[in-house]
Amino acid sequence: MSSFQPDEQPTASSFARPLGPSSRSQVPDFQVMTILGRVAELRAAGADVVSLCAGEPGGGAPTAVNARAAEVHASGRALNYTPTLGIAELRQAIAEHYGRWYGLDVDPARVAVTTGSSGAFMLGFLAAFSPGDRVAMARPGYAAYRNILTALGCQVVELDAGPAVRFQPTPALLEEAEATHGPLAGLILASPNNPTGTMATREEMAALAQWCGGQGVRLVSDEIYHGVTYGAGDERGVCAWEYSTEAMVISSFSKYWGMPGWRIGWMLMPEDLAGAISGLSGSVSLCPPASAQYAAVEAFTEQSYAECDAQVAGFARARALVLANQDRLGWTDAAPADGAFYFWAQPGDRMVEEYSTSTAYCEALLERAHVALTPGTDFDTARGEQYVRLSFAAGEAAVAEAIERIVDFQNGPHPRVPR
Amino acid sequence: MSSFQPDEQPTASSFARPLGPSSRSQVPDFQVMTILGRVAELRAAGADVVSLCAGEPGGGAPTAVNARAAEVHASGRALNYTPTLGIAELRQAIAEHYGRWYGLDVDPARVAVTTGSSGAFMLGFLAAFSPGDRVAMARPGYAAYRNILTALGCQVVELDAGPAVRFQPTPALLEEAEATHGPLAGLILASPNNPTGTMATREEMAALAQWCGGQGVRLVSDEIYHGVTYGAGDERGVCAWEYSTEAMVISSFSKYWGMPGWRIGWMLMPEDLAGAISGLSGSVSLCPPASAQYAAVEAFTEQSYAECDAQVAGFARARALVLANQDRLGWTDAAPADGAFYFWAQPGDRMVEEYSTSTAYCEALLERAHVALTPGTDFDTARGEQYVRLSFAAGEAAVAEAIERIVDFQNGPHPRVPR
Repeated sequence: MSSFQPDEQPTASSFARPLGPSSRSQVPDFQVMTILGRVAELRAAGADVVSLCAGEPGGGAPTAVNARAAEVHASGRALNYTPTLGIAELRQAIAEHYGRWYGLDVDPARVAVTTGSSGAFMLGFLAAFSPGDRVAMARPGYAAYRNILTALGCQVVELDAGPAVRFQPTPALLEEAEATHGPLAGLILASPNNPTGTMATREEMAALAQWCGGQGVRLVSDEIYHGVTYGAGDERGVCAWEYSTEAMVISSFSKYWGMPGWRIGWMLMPEDLAGAISGLSGSVSLCPPASAQYAAVEAFTEQSYAECDAQVAGFARARALVLANQDRLGWTDAAPADGAFYFWAQPGDRMVEEYSTSTAYCEALLERAHVALTPGTDFDTARGEQYVRLSFAAGEAAVAEAIERIVDFQNGPHPRVPR
Repeated sequence: MSSFQPDEQPTASSFARPLGPSSRSQVPDFQVMTILGRVAELRAAGADVVSLCAGEPGGGAPTAVNARAAEVHASGRALNYTPTLGIAELRQAIAEHYGRWYGLDVDPARVAVTTGSSGAFMLGFLAAFSPGDRVAMARPGYAAYRNILTALGCQVVELDAGPAVRFQPTPALLEEAEATHGPLAGLILASPNNPTGTMATREEMAALAQWCGGQGVRLVSDEIYHGVTYGAGDERGVCAWEYSTEAMVISSFSKYWGMPGWRIGWMLMPEDLAGAISGLSGSVSLCPPASAQYAAVEAFTEQSYAECDAQVAGFARARALVLANQDRLGWTDAAPADGAFYFWAQPGDRMVEEYSTSTAYCEALLERAHVALTPGTDFDTARGEQYVRLSFAAGEAAVAEAIERIVDFQNGPHPRVPR
């Protein structure tokens, strides 16, 4: 007999805890990746989209790097795991790069090759910070710092770093943060900064390194935009290791060398963290992509540096074009783009009135004018809806076309779409 | 005047908390990666080392995969970020693979391409498990599960899964673990298992999926050795999604397709975790390596499957050679290597007497006979010093040479080295 007998139902499930995502996985979506997905969809449907949303150099890797990668794959050799912190030849080449650009004598044993700077942040944060640790970063700043730290159970302390301090942390802001929140365990410094492009001067870097050393705060210096700079003087950027080897320095082939999709970066490991990073990396990543490592050795030749510098000159022309068209765009409160390839500004009054949020503005611009920008919400949890970030990494021609489309879009009709 | 004035010393540092590694970074080194490093050193010094320590297929990627990667790089095109969960074409191809091997109809939207299975474990564990969650795994088992979970603040519950249960978890072991430790949040199942090679049968997989469903325990099924199997019947392995799409399935191109150094894998995402995984992946990894994704699309052609099956036939010959030489090796308590490419056994009595730990035995074997094996400590926190793991992935010729060297080494003099 099969009639319903409630007391014969299995009871295990009535005691089961519900499945579902973990408490720590509730990080906000990284908007720029969502927008890149939409760009791909629009292009697949035949639209001619100008994508200025991601920090993706248009020119690609140096010729010799591509050639070496092609050669490795064409040979058909088995690509096995490399040593977990990278092949010796690449660690050596990266160490020598610090001599060339900064006059620093870096021991290759302190260089860890990583799976992009993303891989370096995960390993570095795991190695340096315990759950509950407070880690400071400037707001606006790169969302992934906040998201990874939050997922790892750290408390992110945002420093309200506005135009008055050129969007960079200062000892005064750090003192204030400690007074409000309690002692900090770490500080993330990004110079050139994403999204504002501002850079810490030599004096500012020295002051921050000294303050961190005095307070027992780990300085994490994100230097992935070094070399993509537009000023005189310390034109490559100031390396934190010029002031303190207790800092963790993180860098990448993604920007200056034009290799974002290769997923290869590195860090300089403070001596007291090298063992922990090495131990963790075997489990967390096994090793960075092998062919990218063999190829990246070719990134440090005279010819490769020259090709990268030529790309930076292209970014500079694209940057000049944006600056020259500020009035036509009607954007306000622009940050000085000393380095990186971003222009961080507020859309003009009429756009604010029409769209009220930069998310809505960017959505309309993408759907109607096929120009992809990034709304400020990825970078600023407080005032992000007032800002947009335009990446001029795609180069002069793309930027020129985008400017015309944006101006036309802004001057055109803006039918209110029910949301 | 510059004489020493103690009260003029800066005082900040006397209040500073010490720097140093985080509490969570104290995971044991992954021995196999350390040994790989030593193998590289010995080879650089001219030694002819037979490396049977890592799970690295000797034959490399399918021809068409290498050719596509070479073509992508030779074109010099800029390799930008891909969508964070992978290019649509590859997600589609992976979904179709589940039709071919398991008769499953998988929605490509539930496929996430990842940076190796390592990347999948990090994303999956972050998405599924909160700090403090108890997650069970069989002992012996793959060390990276334990190390990543520990670093993420989860409590690893080891199931003492010996030969009587063919080294696999069972509902009875899980009941016992819950009675001792409290409710579990997850179970990691690896079939074929690393290091023992044993596989869950169809009935065992069904029973585990049902038990997990009833208890609200997330099943994480590591299926990276599927296809590398030596039996009849369900020869590719049983996919957890044949029984429950609440399971997280993790797989990779590293083993069957011979692509460990490429760092590309995937997961099948349970519906309730897809949003969290997608959100986290933008911050944690940005995207998997781009050229590996374009190339991996070629892994699913008839020709590529045929090449991989030919490689598996080579592993089978190497496996047969090990099994035929068990008596000469004098190793005991060997696990049945139903799948994967590992032989898990205890060195014979004389070696136990001479070296007392498998770590010491492996070290001596590497330094004197230039054969690299992995000591059991990577896989078994309780009895690892009694076991070694021999990987026969390098193929018949390497295994034949290694067996002769091991037999000679074991029969030779064993001078005690002061340690």
